[in-house]
Amino acid sequence: MSAAGAQMAAEIVEQPAVLDRVLREGLPEARAVAQVLVERAPRFVLLAARGTSDHAALYAKYLIEIGHGLPCGLASPSTYTAYGARPDLRDVLVIAVSQSGSSPDLVGTVAAARECGATTLAVTNRPGSPLADAASLHLDVRAGAELAVAATKSYTAELLTLFLVLDAWAGGDGGQAGPVPEAAAELVARRAEVTELAQRYRFAQRLVTTGRGYAYPTAREAALKLMETSYVAAHAFSGADLLHGPLAMVDPQYPVVAVVPDGIGRVAMEPVLDRVVERGADLLVLGTETDLPVGARGFLLPGGIPERLHPVVDIVALQWLALEMALARGLDPDAPRGLAKVTQTW
Amino acid sequence: MSAAGAQMAAEIVEQPAVLDRVLREGLPEARAVAQVLVERAPRFVLLAARGTSDHAALYAKYLIEIGHGLPCGLASPSTYTAYGARPDLRDVLVIAVSQSGSSPDLVGTVAAARECGATTLAVTNRPGSPLADAASLHLDVRAGAELAVAATKSYTAELLTLFLVLDAWAGGDGGQAGPVPEAAAELVARRAEVTELAQRYRFAQRLVTTGRGYAYPTAREAALKLMETSYVAAHAFSGADLLHGPLAMVDPQYPVVAVVPDGIGRVAMEPVLDRVVERGADLLVLGTETDLPVGARGFLLPGGIPERLHPVVDIVALQWLALEMALARGLDPDAPRGLAKVTQTW
Repeated sequence: MSAAGAQMAAEIVEQPAVLDRVLREGLPEARAVAQVLVERAPRFVLLAARGTSDHAALYAKYLIEIGHGLPCGLASPSTYTAYGARPDLRDVLVIAVSQSGSSPDLVGTVAAARECGATTLAVTNRPGSPLADAASLHLDVRAGAELAVAATKSYTAELLTLFLVLDAWAGGDGGQAGPVPEAAAELVARRAEVTELAQRYRFAQRLVTTGRGYAYPTAREAALKLMETSYVAAHAFSGADLLHGPLAMVDPQYPVVAVVPDGIGRVAMEPVLDRVVERGADLLVLGTETDLPVGARGFLLPGGIPERLHPVVDIVALQWLALEMALARGLDPDAPRGLAKVTQTW
Repeated sequence: MSAAGAQMAAEIVEQPAVLDRVLREGLPEARAVAQVLVERAPRFVLLAARGTSDHAALYAKYLIEIGHGLPCGLASPSTYTAYGARPDLRDVLVIAVSQSGSSPDLVGTVAAARECGATTLAVTNRPGSPLADAASLHLDVRAGAELAVAATKSYTAELLTLFLVLDAWAGGDGGQAGPVPEAAAELVARRAEVTELAQRYRFAQRLVTTGRGYAYPTAREAALKLMETSYVAAHAFSGADLLHGPLAMVDPQYPVVAVVPDGIGRVAMEPVLDRVVERGADLLVLGTETDLPVGARGFLLPGGIPERLHPVVDIVALQWLALEMALARGLDPDAPRGLAKVTQTW
């Protein structure tokens, strides 16, 4: 038997190589799919995913809404599979994201969407999976077999694959993503720093993660990793939603982790962080700026990458945090209680 | 000074009268707006809202996807207001939902959407508000002045107003909603039962709410009410998402509240409840069936209303629960720390 968390750690460490592979081998495939999207010229995009992949879908939603000028929504699989909805999906692109490509509700959603006239694209880590077969287009995220229950490398591979296909669809050459593997490697190498940070949260029972715009998917994914490995009640809010109610529960026993790499999302978060500080919360800021709100702790993210590519990189620090918090609590993040790798819901 | 929670309690109690008013006075206006929607024949619907109203928007999303066969998404206001996205919104209906009609980010989103060619509908509790003015169509939810920080009557009024306009758009006469005010009155009258129930959670620090399909917005809104009044870390998950990770954190110290009125959502939740019971969780089931999972506590919801109207009714029991949990903890739900009635985010 290997050490607690060894599998998850190995897959976190693997990410720079995976991202490099996505850039080298995935780009031609992404371009070919993008060409089909240019021809089909969909007017709306729906994204379908669950769990970690749902955060990759949320990332794609920001890219599409901001970069492509297309209205975009996250599909509720149950409307198709449980309630049998059969909407008019001509001119609609449906993108399903799933590591395993095996969740029956996603396969059902894509099959239904295709019947309803949608162009369907599956983004998975398994080319021969039922989801890949159900969709008319497929992109392999090339993360390699993922064995840890807590998804890490498949998530960043999904993000980068989605970036490449959406960038190519908008006429880009993917070049902006060049520095991503190295920036991820920088965070992979900083495990020891996070180990120390994690001790602070040893006895935290609740935790809030927050971010806005492109950083919001990172906050969401961080919360999920923390829940599934260290069992802390980690709750993600967009900065705006935090002010609509949840801020009331934040107190000095309720640490807040804010993801604010430089960009529009950070500017939009400034008034939110002020309010969090006013509430006396214990605040950790992951950002690219060295000036911090009074009393806050900082973790410096790699600079030199555009805001819209930060999500591919920043999550690495938070994957380490989830792993190290689990270890600090005497838990094995490779064996989270009550979970299986592939979730069967209809 | 009045007793703690008196304002919130008064507004909870007011709901049957508000819902009756929506049915009587709101229906003609809803029909007139529906007529415009029939003529415009949008092909895609985007919903924009924050906080409690976001759960009303989520309810509308289920109604539209299932009942109207239209793809539908929740807009991220920051993409329009912070990132300046200007998507092609011809053939798109944008529905903004807000009690106050004053949130700058929603006003900005609706103004941008209108510029981009969308048909815009504001659903608010204030006819002369900036949001009502910004949209081409407006529906007043007729809840009357809402003074409690925790929204209650404006939420159920939003739900019923959305139901009426969407039902009329699909050719319905709103008749199915007839029994709703009386069913809400039944739950209003059962405060004492909830007072007793709330004692159980006196010291709970964390709590999960769950539901699927139409019941998911109820689970979301219940969690928000609990967070903002009793400061418990209440976390809502759709039944399917609960199995994708968060289930690992559920243990006997982590109570689960499931909303499962009879219908497709309840059937889809059965395997989820089995897994929750396996985890040894303390489970409360709000449902219309009297048979419960082994060891679970039950709260019987009113019968005789269709699944898709249950959200308008069921939340009343959970509003009482939030109020009573706050009182049991010695808190005043009328004065939640750190919150204002209108949230100013851009």
